[in-house]
Amino acid sequence: MTLRSFARYLPILDWGRQYDRTAFTGDIVAALIVTIMLIPQSLAYALLAGLPPEAGIYASIAPILLYAVFGTSRALAVGPVAVVSLMTAAAVGNIAATGTAGYAAAALTLALLSGLILLTLGLFRLGFIANFLSHPVIAGFITASGLLIAASQLRHLLGIQGEGNTLIEIATGLWPHLSEVNPVTLALGVSATAFLFWVRKGLKPLLRRAGLGPRMADLVAKTGPVLAIVVTTLLTWGLDLGAQGVAIVGEVPQSLPPLTLPSLRPELIRQLFVPALLISVIGFVESISVAQTLAAKKRQRINPDQELIGLGAANIGAAFTGGFPVTGGFSRSVVNYDAGAETPAAGAYTAAGLALAALFLTPLIHYLPKATLAATIIVAVLSLVDVSILRRAWGFSRADFAAVAVTILLTLTLGVEVGVTAGVATSVLVHLYKTSRPHIAVVGRVPGTEHFRNVRRHDVETQSHVLSLRVDESLYFPNARFLEDELMRYAADKPELSDVVLMFPAVNDIDLSALESLEAINTRLRDAGVRLHLSEVKGPVMDRLKRCHFLQELTGEVFLSQHAAICALERRAPAA
Amino acid sequence: MTLRSFARYLPILDWGRQYDRTAFTGDIVAALIVTIMLIPQSLAYALLAGLPPEAGIYASIAPILLYAVFGTSRALAVGPVAVVSLMTAAAVGNIAATGTAGYAAAALTLALLSGLILLTLGLFRLGFIANFLSHPVIAGFITASGLLIAASQLRHLLGIQGEGNTLIEIATGLWPHLSEVNPVTLALGVSATAFLFWVRKGLKPLLRRAGLGPRMADLVAKTGPVLAIVVTTLLTWGLDLGAQGVAIVGEVPQSLPPLTLPSLRPELIRQLFVPALLISVIGFVESISVAQTLAAKKRQRINPDQELIGLGAANIGAAFTGGFPVTGGFSRSVVNYDAGAETPAAGAYTAAGLALAALFLTPLIHYLPKATLAATIIVAVLSLVDVSILRRAWGFSRADFAAVAVTILLTLTLGVEVGVTAGVATSVLVHLYKTSRPHIAVVGRVPGTEHFRNVRRHDVETQSHVLSLRVDESLYFPNARFLEDELMRYAADKPELSDVVLMFPAVNDIDLSALESLEAINTRLRDAGVRLHLSEVKGPVMDRLKRCHFLQELTGEVFLSQHAAICALERRAPAA
Repeated sequence: MTLRSFARYLPILDWGRQYDRTAFTGDIVAALIVTIMLIPQSLAYALLAGLPPEAGIYASIAPILLYAVFGTSRALAVGPVAVVSLMTAAAVGNIAATGTAGYAAAALTLALLSGLILLTLGLFRLGFIANFLSHPVIAGFITASGLLIAASQLRHLLGIQGEGNTLIEIATGLWPHLSEVNPVTLALGVSATAFLFWVRKGLKPLLRRAGLGPRMADLVAKTGPVLAIVVTTLLTWGLDLGAQGVAIVGEVPQSLPPLTLPSLRPELIRQLFVPALLISVIGFVESISVAQTLAAKKRQRINPDQELIGLGAANIGAAFTGGFPVTGGFSRSVVNYDAGAETPAAGAYTAAGLALAALFLTPLIHYLPKATLAATIIVAVLSLVDVSILRRAWGFSRADFAAVAVTILLTLTLGVEVGVTAGVATSVLVHLYKTSRPHIAVVGRVPGTEHFRNVRRHDVETQSHVLSLRVDESLYFPNARFLEDELMRYAADKPELSDVVLMFPAVNDIDLSALESLEAINTRLRDAGVRLHLSEVKGPVMDRLKRCHFLQELTGEVFLSQHAAICALERRAPAA
Repeated sequence: MTLRSFARYLPILDWGRQYDRTAFTGDIVAALIVTIMLIPQSLAYALLAGLPPEAGIYASIAPILLYAVFGTSRALAVGPVAVVSLMTAAAVGNIAATGTAGYAAAALTLALLSGLILLTLGLFRLGFIANFLSHPVIAGFITASGLLIAASQLRHLLGIQGEGNTLIEIATGLWPHLSEVNPVTLALGVSATAFLFWVRKGLKPLLRRAGLGPRMADLVAKTGPVLAIVVTTLLTWGLDLGAQGVAIVGEVPQSLPPLTLPSLRPELIRQLFVPALLISVIGFVESISVAQTLAAKKRQRINPDQELIGLGAANIGAAFTGGFPVTGGFSRSVVNYDAGAETPAAGAYTAAGLALAALFLTPLIHYLPKATLAATIIVAVLSLVDVSILRRAWGFSRADFAAVAVTILLTLTLGVEVGVTAGVATSVLVHLYKTSRPHIAVVGRVPGTEHFRNVRRHDVETQSHVLSLRVDESLYFPNARFLEDELMRYAADKPELSDVVLMFPAVNDIDLSALESLEAINTRLRDAGVRLHLSEVKGPVMDRLKRCHFLQELTGEVFLSQHAAICALERRAPAA
């Protein structure tokens, strides 16, 4: 491998060469703001993933650095995100109980598998598989996950037990404990939630009125969660609320990310492989959408295959430094971008900031109430919930609606893995069903033109001895026999029939099953004394037909255009 | 339900009304010949399914009668067939050991489930799902099954142990017992096989030369297996070969089909449901192909949904009369047809013949060697093996080849259920992959015409400020982003660009993901000062676009034809 081809996998060599003081200043300011925002977010998502709080910070350090080296987005901030943390909790929760050593170890293996999958997809340029997650499925999945996450945090707001991976599990888990609600925790949690909602909606206008510029007001408002954390931590410490049953974060080790070795037990890998694949694809889709949105604003380009490599490296990094699966997060990336990050170096400075926090600030969060973290999560994820996709999809097509509805319903009731898999399966099945009964139109000539349109939609000319059918679908196995049946049905209605023209402008591909149906049609029409012609056959389809005997056996001709076909057949018309 | 709508489900009311003496004579002669042929075949397929020989005869009685009432084919003969018997052995073998009561009971439940599935598919008119088995997958599956079946019978020819559901299992099962080969069994088995091959190839010409008509010679040749059975049975009885280790059929109860009640244990149903579904679909596809081939010869019509009901009833019948899953068989149906069967009544007479055989002939087969039955099976199934499908598919398209190759390979190595499922999955995945990177052509006008063709295949006129792209695929989630990327790539190569026309004659459908991509394209082109137009949009696609805001936001126009688009844009051309 030459140095040059190697450099393809290291975008850092590209931007690193032109790094200057302006870029440095932009990056360092962005890093400071993002660091402040990331501390509560990282703690909260660790809690959501069922891991100790420090795991969230660890998962934000090595991954950011590795993404800075291998990633192509200049503003993407990689670390724990809500949906992936939820999926981690669901996957790992099937293997070990929360809080056990096995749980944390499984999270490492999950991150490693996810990293290796992403890396493999990237090296083999398989980024297109993310396209199989249709927009309605993603939108439905994100909305349902947001609801699930918010529901899963209720127990921290109420100060009771009750875990679960589905709405039903969560509800039945909370129910028997409702009498044990801790009023102090509830007051704290509800206040924090209300405060954070107000920060989202009300703080920015207030800051603007206080004279701050729009961008600055926005950034300060984004650090609101830090304020909530500081105030509730001080309250809990000052009033000793821990003694009144308020669950606190407690002891957090003061250390840089540890070196961890993920277990490679075959049994564990077997159990985690499918969840890791789903996490990889979902994480990649989320990350690439954010990266492309931000890149478009500055007319930069994102290379999806290189992004897979960047995210793969980040996850492998997380696996070896006490983290859990990560991806490019929406809120942190937007803040990074808005704060003026110029290059991926901003990510490196953020990593340094978080490393300092891990070393020196962890004792300060000893008294941080878990209810505050839950409030942070709830407020963050409820902004992801957007049920309008249901209405949009319903208005556009029943097929898209089916995919969204299945995704939302099954994610809520049977969990994230079933939900997203069923959503993809529904999209595919609906597509197969639709193409299995293609639109087949009898066409005629628009008078005075060379255009042929559906006789039922347009006022067109037809001949009694010619049947022209336009097939509006590629011909392949699910619809091969359908064409046979439909054509024979139409032909049976035309007693004077001598010629059938199949118009193929919309036939983009023909497979072996369809070829055999065409052969059968040709034979059956021949036996009935009717010739079969084709028109407007596309180049790739013609190439394929030339590879077999069909064209030699065809009783009629292949015309370049339907117009040419009708002209030729009119000349040959039987005398009236 | 009125009597008339009920009659729809009873084709017997149709042909039964016109039944006369000519039809009766034809039917009774056909029944006699088919009965003689069916006795060895039924015994053999019971052996293949791992069941006692009488099960094969029972499975040919009630099913034939029920199909005669509910089926639409006039010549189809329903009963045990090779592939379905193999699938039965594979499915039931996972649950109980061959020869146990549990094994026979599971076969009954499998037949019941299969019958209920077929009936449900028929009542809900879901016969089209059989189309998802593409021709290459069926061809590959039948070929691989034929090889598997032949291999599975080797142990009976050799007189040793060694069972298995895959080639590997069979080979490793036979290997350690090779030293125990019974020479008498081997001699008997090889002679029977050689004789039956000769009957297939050499007997008919001999009979012709002896003065028989072609049809008669054919029919007599088809009864060859009976001769093999008679001779080897007499030999075994006369020379007491059983004492020399030749495995014989042994005691067979002399009785009409018993009334059996299939078990409905939920656990059993759960284990057998997927195999039953596969058996139903494979059996249906095999049966309908035979029925359609025979019906086409007499210009009769087969109703696929009613066929499902007929086969469903037949399988339910098998479940309650000591049988196992059945379907319309190729060889027995062809014999029935050739022997002159006029109506499904021939089936009823065959059933009566078999009932008499079950009552009176079973003692005669006590000394029938299993090796003879194995020889019957081997000779029958090797005619199913046709590896030329591999060459045909390779020549036509790599996608079809992949589906055949996967089906054959996995059926042989991992068994029938994995094989056929993987074949269908491969067909679907290959289709999704192909449509995820559609053919997109830059088009220009063929001089002097209104036709637009690919600039790389035809000598056409283009304009420097207009980019016309023909999209050769429906736009849906797997290719939505691909279009976005390709269009931007082409647009970047045209500095003078002011208008992009997307030509949609081959776009048969648009889903929500593709709509969002079109919206993104429109916005991005607008920002670059380029208008986006559409041309030749099909009716159904236009209807869909009208349901959302896209057409209002479109910067350009929608033209009826590409010709109209270019005429309009030429007029507006910027001054050179």
